[in-house]
Formats: sequence, structure tokens, C-alpha cells
Amino acid sequence: MKEKILDYLNKGHDYLSGDQISKHLGISRQGLWKHIQELKDSGYQIAAVPHLGYRLESCPDRLFALEAARGLNTKFIGTSTKLSADKKIYYFDNLVSTMDSAMQLGLQGAASGTLVLAESQIKGRGRLGRGWFSPKYKGIYLSLILRPKILPSACPILTLMSAVSICEAVKEVIDLDAQIKWPNDVLIYNKKIAGILTEMNAEVDKVNFVVIGIGLNVNNDKKSLIAGATSLKEQQGVEINRVVLLRELLRRIENNYFLLEDKGPGEIINKWRNFTLTLGTRVKVDYQNKHIEGQATDIDADGALLIRKDSGLIQKVSSGDVTACR
Amino acid sequence: MKEKILDYLNKGHDYLSGDQISKHLGISRQGLWKHIQELKDSGYQIAAVPHLGYRLESCPDRLFALEAARGLNTKFIGTSTKLSADKKIYYFDNLVSTMDSAMQLGLQGAASGTLVLAESQIKGRGRLGRGWFSPKYKGIYLSLILRPKILPSACPILTLMSAVSICEAVKEVIDLDAQIKWPNDVLIYNKKIAGILTEMNAEVDKVNFVVIGIGLNVNNDKKSLIAGATSLKEQQGVEINRVVLLRELLRRIENNYFLLEDKGPGEIINKWRNFTLTLGTRVKVDYQNKHIEGQATDIDADGALLIRKDSGLIQKVSSGDVTACR
Repeated sequence: MKEKILDYLNKGHDYLSGDQISKHLGISRQGLWKHIQELKDSGYQIAAVPHLGYRLESCPDRLFALEAARGLNTKFIGTSTKLSADKKIYYFDNLVSTMDSAMQLGLQGAASGTLVLAESQIKGRGRLGRGWFSPKYKGIYLSLILRPKILPSACPILTLMSAVSICEAVKEVIDLDAQIKWPNDVLIYNKKIAGILTEMNAEVDKVNFVVIGIGLNVNNDKKSLIAGATSLKEQQGVEINRVVLLRELLRRIENNYFLLEDKGPGEIINKWRNFTLTLGTRVKVDYQNKHIEGQATDIDADGALLIRKDSGLIQKVSSGDVTACR
Repeated sequence: MKEKILDYLNKGHDYLSGDQISKHLGISRQGLWKHIQELKDSGYQIAAVPHLGYRLESCPDRLFALEAARGLNTKFIGTSTKLSADKKIYYFDNLVSTMDSAMQLGLQGAASGTLVLAESQIKGRGRLGRGWFSPKYKGIYLSLILRPKILPSACPILTLMSAVSICEAVKEVIDLDAQIKWPNDVLIYNKKIAGILTEMNAEVDKVNFVVIGIGLNVNNDKKSLIAGATSLKEQQGVEINRVVLLRELLRRIENNYFLLEDKGPGEIINKWRNFTLTLGTRVKVDYQNKHIEGQATDIDADGALLIRKDSGLIQKVSSGDVTACR
């Protein structure tokens, strides 16, 4: 209901009488008043003037579930469907890790498209047990449960799909060009703005569910960034509306996920090639205690990187840490 | 302490005075009395005769953690180590599914070797969402958490390792010859006595932990068996001591796990070949909506089945349902 009240106030842009709102939304005046109070408590500035009514003055800079869901227009990501009326967005002011919570929800049977959002994380997780610095109200920290009908070995493509979606959303919302460093880093001017962690719960031959974790530096100032990292605000010079960016990101992920389901990995890989920093450059990859150096020539259908070594041999690496060689 | 009391009573085989037991174990007479009462409540028959003391008459047919742990002599499976003093065996009279509980424990950081035992399961799970019929006090239903340093793609070997361990334990304890139908069924005279389910929690390139689930029909009568299944009791004609079998099974799994760590998959695969029903026979495999028919010739280092089709082509299948052709 709060979502509907906000939407209605938002559309009006001017004072709307309590009577008018109550009638439009089919709730009592008392019920409306209670919702308005709760919205105010959450940080919404809503002017209430006798004889005039209510006016929405401003929304707080929070990724509240109802904010993420307003006008999202997705089919299943963050959106309840007829088949699953379950809660689809879980919002926390602070959380140990969105990955841990989403994994738990997944085990409990949460539907595909269930989203965990946190304003800050105590132990945000990155690949291979590394951390993700998650200062409060600065970034977008999310974990998304998906239930794709794929084999465990096909999961790396989901990381690429997510990286592509981040680049597309950043381009769309703030017109900045982000690039992807294989496999899971998103950079602007060679500094990291986002990381992706894909985890799965699977049988040997069947993925039960996947959790895609995304950490995105949005409004971080220099002091809330680690070395080698940047934020969209630092690059753009202005504060970014995190909710707008989040919604666009979710829409892009959904679109690319459908593309993957319909057409297979080919289209995602083509998009990925357009955003990559890695292909065509000379790289060194640390991969399970091995070091492979050569020209990064392409990625294959599973998202593995193909490296042409100096011997001419093509080596395939399915994961690892890439360093650019000069 | 209860474990120590049982061990001491067990060794004595005759009446031991309360004084003697208290002194030997360094507890008060009152403490001893309390433990004895609790053991009696759990179903242990302990005779208490004035001037003579206590005698252990019988143990209940239960897989209590303390029963499983007594004389287990493993390094880490079901056994606390210096590095992890955590509880290693979780016992339940009834549980939705040992897999679900073990997955939860794994997410919470439970150490490698942590074991979940249930006397019955409401929704025992098998491969690909199938069930495992788990009537009370009849079988061994366990899930074991392991933290191997392997890639997700190497997990199938753990299923083979578990199947080998079941065959070895059954042979050792009751001298019956069990056989393995690739990938995860253990049969006696072509009827199923055990199933194995291997699930993982993994990043794209790193297994966080694996849960191996085993369902073993031990003392089931005909009416507590589904079609096509048999039990050890049915084959042997006598009631089997489930605890003794469980301990042997855990020891075999640990030995084979160490073998795998030390020597790689080769030795496990050699053992597996000795127990298999599948190799050398003509089979049909249903695998991701494809049907492959041919001669099952071998398994490779990852545990995948190699099938020589009539065209002479060798096809590799990493999982699927095998049916013998006549």
C-alpha cells in the first residue's frame, strides 16, 4: 500500500487531499494517516497542510524494497508473479553478507528472482574468500537468486552476463563507459567500480540455484574507497541516484537472462566482447598456482578465456586472476 | 562422559561398583548416577544391584552420536580434532532431510567431517529431486560435510568414492557382495540397497563444501521397502547392527578420501571397477533429454562414463540414468 501511496503522490506532484487519496486507493483516512506516518519515519518528507492535503517533498536516499520495486517493470526479478506470490525483495540496513542471506533463502526454497539488498555489509564477500568493502549508503550491494536450468559447468556465463548488465546500466543511467576485466571485474579508467561473485548450490549434474552477488561503488568518496577502486560519483562528479541505477541494473540483468535462455550464450558473449578490456591484450593469468602468459584472444561459449601462448598453443582458462602485461 | 561410562562398562562386562567407576572416570557418585539415569532414559539397559554395582545389559538400536563415535577411530569424520573442537555428529530422531540440515551447517561454517544422522526422514532426498524412503530405525540416513580442495567439475568422483566405501563396509561387516550401478546406486542381486547424493556449495572455480548423502537400507522388512529395493537384512536373513555398520562405513569413507587426496582419482577408480555392474555391459543412458545406447567401456578420471556407440564413436556422459539392455 505504501508503494501505491508514494506512486500516487509522485504522480500528483502537488497537494492531494486525504479524501482523494483514500478514495483512489480504497483505504480509510485513518489507514492512510498511519501509512503516511510510517513513511515519514522512514525518511520520506511528506508535507501535510490543512485544507490542502499531502505532498511528497522528497524521498530518502535508501534502497528500500518499496523503492526498488516502484516502476521496476520486471517479469520476475524483484517482482512477485502469479506463480510465486512470495516476497521478492529483502532489504537490510546492515547485514553480515548479502551472499550468506541469499544462500539461506535459496536453501529455504526462495523463488528465482528473489533479491537481497543491504545498505552496508559487515563481511561483504568477493571471489575466493576475498572481501568487498561495503560502506553504508554509498554503494549497491545485492545478491540475486536465480534458478537456471543449466549444468554447474555452465555457470561462468552468468558472471559475464552480470558484468554486461552492469556496463549497460551505467551507460544508460549516467552515460559512463565501463569496461570488463575478465572474468568478474568492472572498471572505469582502469579502476574497479564493481565486482561480481557467482555461487551455486548444485548436484553433480543439476544446478539447484545460483546466487549472483554484485558490489557496485556508487557514491563513495575517496575515503570510502580502497586502493585501485573508484566510484561512479568520483568519475561523474555528482551524486548518483542509487535507486534509479539499481532498477535499471535489475532490468538489464533480467533482459540478458532471458536472452541467455532464448538464444544461448552467443549473444551475451558478443555483448561482452564489446565491453571487454581483456581481449586483444597481453595478459598474465594466475590460475590454480599456475602462471600463464600470452595474448588473450577470445572467450568460448562457457565464458572461459582463450590465451595464445608464445609457443602458439592456445590455452583455455576457466577462471583466475588476470594482470595486464606492458 | 556418557561415552566413557559406556566404554568402561562395556570393557568390564561384569558388575562394576559405582565407587570404582567414579574413581576411574574422575566424577562424583552423584554425577555418575545422573548419567546412568539419562542413559537408561535413552534406552540403555543398565542393571544396578546393591553391593555389586552397575552392569550394561544392552544398548538400544539407535545411531546416537555417542554410539557412532564410540571406537570410531577416524581422524576427522565424526571426530573432533585439535584444529576444530566443534561438535562433529548431529543426531536426530526425525528430520525433514539430512541433506537440508547439513547444507545449513555447511553455510554456517561447519568443519569438514561434520556428520548429520537421522533415524527417519520426512522428505529424504535423492538425485534430481527424487525422494529416498526413510522408515524409522530401519536404515542409515546420513549426510557428511567435506571441504575438499577441488574444482566443481571434480565432484563426481566423490560419489564414486562413497559407493566404493559402502561396498567395502558391507563386505567387511556382513560379508555380502554389493555392486555399483553407475553413477550412484549400490545394488545386491540387482536390487537397490543404497543411494548416494552429492551436493555442493561452490563458486564458479572453487568448491566451498560438499555434502555427501547416503541412504542405506539395513533392517527393512519387505513392507518397508519400495519396489526394486532390498535391504541387508532381507539378503542376510538376520537383523544387522546398524551402529557397527555405520562406523565401518565412516572409516572406509575417510580412508578413501585420504587416498583420493594423496593419490588422485586413479586408485578410487580402480576400486570402483572391481565393484561395478555397469562396465562391459550394453546400456542405455538417459542424459539431459538425450538417449545414448552402447557398450559401457570405462570411466575416466572425472568419474564420467564412456560409452562406445554402435558407430564406434566413444561418448562421454558425466551423469544420467543407466538402464541395462538385454
